Amino acid sequence: MSYQPAEAPRAKAVALISTGTDLLRGRPIDTHLSSIAREVLPLGIEIGSHSTCPDDLEAIVETILAATSKAETVILTGGLGPTEDDYTRRAAERAFGRPLEFQPALWKTIRGRFRRFKIPIAAINRRQAYLPRGAWTLPNPNGSAPGFGIDHGGRFFFALPGPPHEMLPMLRTHVLPRIRGRVTFKLWESKVYGIPEGDVDEIVKPIVEKRSGASYGLSVSGGMVSVSVKFETGSPAPTVRLLEKALGIHLIGPWTLAEAVAGLLLKKRRTIAIAESCTGGQIASALTNYPGISKSLLEGWICYSNASKTARLGVPADLIRSRGAVSREVALAMAKGAATTAGADIGVATTGIAGPSGGSIEKPVGLVWHAVHYRNRTRAERRVFPGDRAAVKGRATNLALDLVRRALLE
Amino acid sequence: MSYQPAEAPRAKAVALISTGTDLLRGRPIDTHLSSIAREVLPLGIEIGSHSTCPDDLEAIVETILAATSKAETVILTGGLGPTEDDYTRRAAERAFGRPLEFQPALWKTIRGRFRRFKIPIAAINRRQAYLPRGAWTLPNPNGSAPGFGIDHGGRFFFALPGPPHEMLPMLRTHVLPRIRGRVTFKLWESKVYGIPEGDVDEIVKPIVEKRSGASYGLSVSGGMVSVSVKFETGSPAPTVRLLEKALGIHLIGPWTLAEAVAGLLLKKRRTIAIAESCTGGQIASALTNYPGISKSLLEGWICYSNASKTARLGVPADLIRSRGAVSREVALAMAKGAATTAGADIGVATTGIAGPSGGSIEKPVGLVWHAVHYRNRTRAERRVFPGDRAAVKGRATNLALDLVRRALLE
Repeated sequence: MSYQPAEAPRAKAVALISTGTDLLRGRPIDTHLSSIAREVLPLGIEIGSHSTCPDDLEAIVETILAATSKAETVILTGGLGPTEDDYTRRAAERAFGRPLEFQPALWKTIRGRFRRFKIPIAAINRRQAYLPRGAWTLPNPNGSAPGFGIDHGGRFFFALPGPPHEMLPMLRTHVLPRIRGRVTFKLWESKVYGIPEGDVDEIVKPIVEKRSGASYGLSVSGGMVSVSVKFETGSPAPTVRLLEKALGIHLIGPWTLAEAVAGLLLKKRRTIAIAESCTGGQIASALTNYPGISKSLLEGWICYSNASKTARLGVPADLIRSRGAVSREVALAMAKGAATTAGADIGVATTGIAGPSGGSIEKPVGLVWHAVHYRNRTRAERRVFPGDRAAVKGRATNLALDLVRRALLE
Repeated sequence: MSYQPAEAPRAKAVALISTGTDLLRGRPIDTHLSSIAREVLPLGIEIGSHSTCPDDLEAIVETILAATSKAETVILTGGLGPTEDDYTRRAAERAFGRPLEFQPALWKTIRGRFRRFKIPIAAINRRQAYLPRGAWTLPNPNGSAPGFGIDHGGRFFFALPGPPHEMLPMLRTHVLPRIRGRVTFKLWESKVYGIPEGDVDEIVKPIVEKRSGASYGLSVSGGMVSVSVKFETGSPAPTVRLLEKALGIHLIGPWTLAEAVAGLLLKKRRTIAIAESCTGGQIASALTNYPGISKSLLEGWICYSNASKTARLGVPADLIRSRGAVSREVALAMAKGAATTAGADIGVATTGIAGPSGGSIEKPVGLVWHAVHYRNRTRAERRVFPGDRAAVKGRATNLALDLVRRALLE
């Protein structure tokens, strides 16, 4: 076993710090890494490390020192509020040896905001008007906690508020422009659906390996494989064309499956109706995240009971009796019934056993039938998904959406 | 501004390390911190820090060294596969000065697994049979990558695979029993809905401050406030009773709103039907995550178009014309129509403008009407939610579920 020379993505990288004891207790799930990565990657900037530390002054100071020793730019989130356990200002004071100084102009802004919203200002809010010496204010139009930036001998430190809807606009407006000048690579990212990770690897590997200065990574989640290819030099275009051709119908693009399907529906001006049993509304909910989808999505039914499958979608009761509610025939009848009843071009349906109980040897937990009805043609797919109830719902939602996508692309 | 003595949760805490360049690129979102926190907190163990580092040998070694200097127990995830960039075994070798040694018994287990699944084994898989000297194997019944543990002079290091469905069973079976003996505190956690964070703080603060050895934290997400109270000594029961009484109807419990509502529906044997416009299936999808809910949830409709509100739910067309689709009257008619059509005890409905377009001065983006019909009584609530389309859908889903919860509790 040999030691490979380690790839060192640090020099041009950003170190990210999340503060918050609640994050270390797992609630809420920390989405800062993911959302900041999506902002900086298109600029050719990698996040080299991410640390989460508790609301504890010493721990934050140590984490800042460790991060600044490794990365040129450090972005920290949280701890900017007015209370005792909002330590970020004091941690920066200690880490950079820059004493906190009262900023009259900032105090005026803070008071103005309270006056505008007609909220009485508390004495503790004065703490938010202190910044480490030499820091500049990052205005926060979406909340009361201002951020700040420090240029510490060419190393940048940015402190941003914890709530994502305050943090992200501040990042985009006041942080990204400062670190933008360092683009060093291009990234191509896409999701791939319908073939296992190993097969994706076998397709991607030879194409990327032929291209000098390119490297790739794969990750899997809920049956969806994400591919990202990093190009250190030159244009990605020829390699991307090869990848697109080789991955073919399985290539979804950088968006989610629901976004891909919603985009196709609107582009092709097709209407859709949805009949869900075991996915329980998740297909409709995923599609309705897409702005403007009301032009295409006419109706949806959650038909848990057999009676509702018959009454709402016209699935013959004796078909359910003879084949069972979880069957190819009933899935197809649901899809057709949805399209016909709603007067939609496409009908999509799921029926299955999400678990944890209700399974049998013939029809185990995780069994789902998915069906699509489009242009008088129907197609159905059976699958037994692993995982718990939520996992089965999620995977069935993806497969149903993919059936619609393929039908639209044929 | 004074320096408070920092609370030091480290001594009894676990340090967590995630490895993976893909995680630092934000895909997938790293859920390890959240899911491991939920496992160890009930045992009285805090996670003192969490770091994510790239697939880079030096970075992993440094992160392990930093973590072991701070915490008695270090749990690392990822990097146990057979490929070149699976560095965890080599990083542990370096960090602890324990040379990798071939484990014939482990190699036999790995080969056996491949044979059982009739997959030809590659030469590189032999790498997975090397462990740092003195390490013990953590069997992986759910994947090909075995984990390992090291007792380094009383400090424990555990290396677990990255995929959550492999990591969590291994954590529960082979890690938690080893660190269980250190329970030092009790944690009470609950969600609170319907009052702002500041009001929750005003209620919780005086109760917790009166109790010695207790501290609390609040966090907010999507209009939901999470409260966690930590008791270092004694029984939490008297304080918890005070909190429960003071928070009253706003107290949801440790579960989600959808779980609370689903549990109430099943306990009280009430049936429900759902009519969703702007939430687009999200209410139904949230409820159907609950096992056994098919006993209570009869049917759901996603009625995006005005025509479908009339055809499926019997909302009078001239009511929609005169009041508008987004109105108290139409929301109430949808809720009643859903209950009546499905023959359910309860009907719940939403109609609103999720955005980003479609708003007016009178009816801005984010405006949602929520309605519940139960026992011949109806109630409706209007709200203008901030945030993007997904945020509006999520907040409206919560409020609609809370209306059902309150109706059931009256």
